[in-house]
Amino acid sequence: MPIITLSSDFGTADGYAAAMKGVILSICRQARLVDLSHDLPARDVLAAALMLERCAPLFPPGCVHLAVVDPGVGTSRLPIAFCTPDASFVGPDNGLFSLVWRRACAGRPEGAVFAVELADARFRREPVSPTFHGRDVFAPAAAHLACGLSPDDLGPRLAEIALLDLPEPERLADGAVCGQIIAVDHFGNCISNIEIEQAHPHELRVETGGRALVLRQTYAEVGPGEPLALIGSCGRLELTVRDGSYAEQYGVRVGDGLRVTADRADRPSSHGRSG
Amino acid sequence: MPIITLSSDFGTADGYAAAMKGVILSICRQARLVDLSHDLPARDVLAAALMLERCAPLFPPGCVHLAVVDPGVGTSRLPIAFCTPDASFVGPDNGLFSLVWRRACAGRPEGAVFAVELADARFRREPVSPTFHGRDVFAPAAAHLACGLSPDDLGPRLAEIALLDLPEPERLADGAVCGQIIAVDHFGNCISNIEIEQAHPHELRVETGGRALVLRQTYAEVGPGEPLALIGSCGRLELTVRDGSYAEQYGVRVGDGLRVTADRADRPSSHGRSG
Amino acid sequence: MPIITLSSDFGTADGYAAAMKGVILSICRQARLVDLSHDLPARDVLAAALMLERCAPLFPPGCVHLAVVDPGVGTSRLPIAFCTPDASFVGPDNGLFSLVWRRACAGRPEGAVFAVELADARFRREPVSPTFHGRDVFAPAAAHLACGLSPDDLGPRLAEIALLDLPEPERLADGAVCGQIIAVDHFGNCISNIEIEQAHPHELRVETGGRALVLRQTYAEVGPGEPLALIGSCGRLELTVRDGSYAEQYGVRVGDGLRVTADRADRPSSHGRSG
Repeated sequence: MPIITLSSDFGTADGYAAAMKGVILSICRQARLVDLSHDLPARDVLAAALMLERCAPLFPPGCVHLAVVDPGVGTSRLPIAFCTPDASFVGPDNGLFSLVWRRACAGRPEGAVFAVELADARFRREPVSPTFHGRDVFAPAAAHLACGLSPDDLGPRLAEIALLDLPEPERLADGAVCGQIIAVDHFGNCISNIEIEQAHPHELRVETGGRALVLRQTYAEVGPGEPLALIGSCGRLELTVRDGSYAEQYGVRVGDGLRVTADRADRPSSHGRSG
Repeated sequence: MPIITLSSDFGTADGYAAAMKGVILSICRQARLVDLSHDLPARDVLAAALMLERCAPLFPPGCVHLAVVDPGVGTSRLPIAFCTPDASFVGPDNGLFSLVWRRACAGRPEGAVFAVELADARFRREPVSPTFHGRDVFAPAAAHLACGLSPDDLGPRLAEIALLDLPEPERLADGAVCGQIIAVDHFGNCISNIEIEQAHPHELRVETGGRALVLRQTYAEVGPGEPLALIGSCGRLELTVRDGSYAEQYGVRVGDGLRVTADRADRPSSHGRSG
Repeated sequence: MPIITLSSDFGTADGYAAAMKGVILSICRQARLVDLSHDLPARDVLAAALMLERCAPLFPPGCVHLAVVDPGVGTSRLPIAFCTPDASFVGPDNGLFSLVWRRACAGRPEGAVFAVELADARFRREPVSPTFHGRDVFAPAAAHLACGLSPDDLGPRLAEIALLDLPEPERLADGAVCGQIIAVDHFGNCISNIEIEQAHPHELRVETGGRALVLRQTYAEVGPGEPLALIGSCGRLELTVRDGSYAEQYGVRVGDGLRVTADRADRPSSHGRSG
């Protein structure tokens, strides 16, 4: 039984996400539907791209990932599907797939990952509503792929897909790295664009908004309500508060800057000094 | 494997929706559960009726749709199931099924669509809580139907079901149509009771709240933040703002009026004049 | 096909709950995932324990219940699984399972219900993130259990699990019972720690916040907007308002007290006197 995951910014109250489920099951009744999220922030393509990056690679081979955050529905942005050796993705070509696309392409020969335009009317729900491609274009395409249709039957191959210009961290002459907050999660954790493979706790010092934080390994290293920096579960440097919301406590937003340096002064640091 | 969809205003935090799932799977373990929404506005029967209309008809034949928005739980309103040649519906007889019922009956011979009272205690979870028929009456009935029980085993047939008096649009002597907003969706789109089969863009002019909007085909025809009128994905005239919330921007609520006329003056309209 | 239920305070917007689903399906592709809730109040272990108590016992035998509300992730609290003759539970050992554990143990011989520490690295996703055991420890354990792994393969048995000190109601010399509000649900119903097997309506009088309410059987016994006391669907005394939110209307919070006495004065009560 094929697995189709669903992600959108539709919420669930209005039945838009439910409409996609109905269309999918009408085409591919045996499909197993797995909701990733329908609470993505409205029209926030970057947040959706980060969410997909966080979870899509964890799914087993052969899944179809349907994702719709589509502020440009009805404009010239293309409806697409793209296929990797592991999975298929279906949705609008607006940058939503930037992160999973880059990750899928990395280290693979050209052509191993390819995209097609959803152009063939046979695999759409006609007439296509100009405001709801999720129901009329993307859900049918995902269902047909799950049922075994070849992606090339959906439409012509595309030479490239739209990729977001993600802010890249910058390495300064003195060795410091400057980055920015790219997401604030449900708990108020502020996730930066600085990826850290591995670091021993207390080796790094993070300056942001007039505060200096030392990199910790777990929440338990500070007291309740105290701020800390962590390597988050996706390998990105995060600012967080034990049992609290960093974003709320310090008024942080996406786009705010931070600066990471080797923590020479503080080592060995005491817990009380990081706040 | 039978499909049961679930809709409610229970939210998910308290486990009420989850309780229905447990009851269903205990009776019909092979049922496939598909959440439509548990975030319907609390006690808002009309919003739930519109949600069901938007998505239930898209599901494949044979589904059981369990829907519970039930402010009158424990009163004299009946618990019912109704069956069409395509699907079954289970829930309170309070108008929730008005739109799917009317749609199912349209063009069908009498008796093709019929309702029963959920009267037989064998297919309830006893003792029935007077405040949670979702768990004790509706979920068991849906599960038994999904497992193949004949609807007539659930209880006696009903001559009619409760139908909401939906506000109907009014056609004036001068050809104008007056309607009202019947729903505001997750994006702040304001959905009216005026159904439009098809119209060429710019043919219609919509007056509402002192503003005049021209009917457009896609968001792309206006600039970001500008208002427009569209035929929504369910065929109803909608007021919307590109990349924004019409309801918030203009303080619109369910019940507000609008008036649609032929757009003689404006044709051919320029984009800048509609706002 | 094994059933795994999922509960968390992750929300869905960030993909944390979705990540758990991906990990589960990668280990046990045939698992059927059933969302109980991902909207549990952040870090609220008691609310989660109550939610699990409300719905987990309703599921059919053999389910695996994965639940993650884990403010102490990365601290010394253990990751555990526990097994009853009916079901398995997987999550942090922080009191989350207090209510289902006590209920499962009641009336059963010692050893019929037992817990293990999730200690074996073979059944984790390595390297384990110190901040996301849901993905790296709990989801894999749940998936392996669903696929038939013996719980004893996950790690050593534990002599006990962490149990919350739930506030117990107190019986006074005059026969009155004093309790407190332990939960406020989605509708603003205020749920107390006083369990009532059965009582005839109007037999009990509830005093709280300067108001006196008579125990009713259904909402219909009072007018819209009026307060009442009910035996809720889980057998606990609740304070509620017909078509409204008791919590909002009277500013009630978890921890507020109430006092229940036999309703000698009021019997037979008239509807208008309870408010």
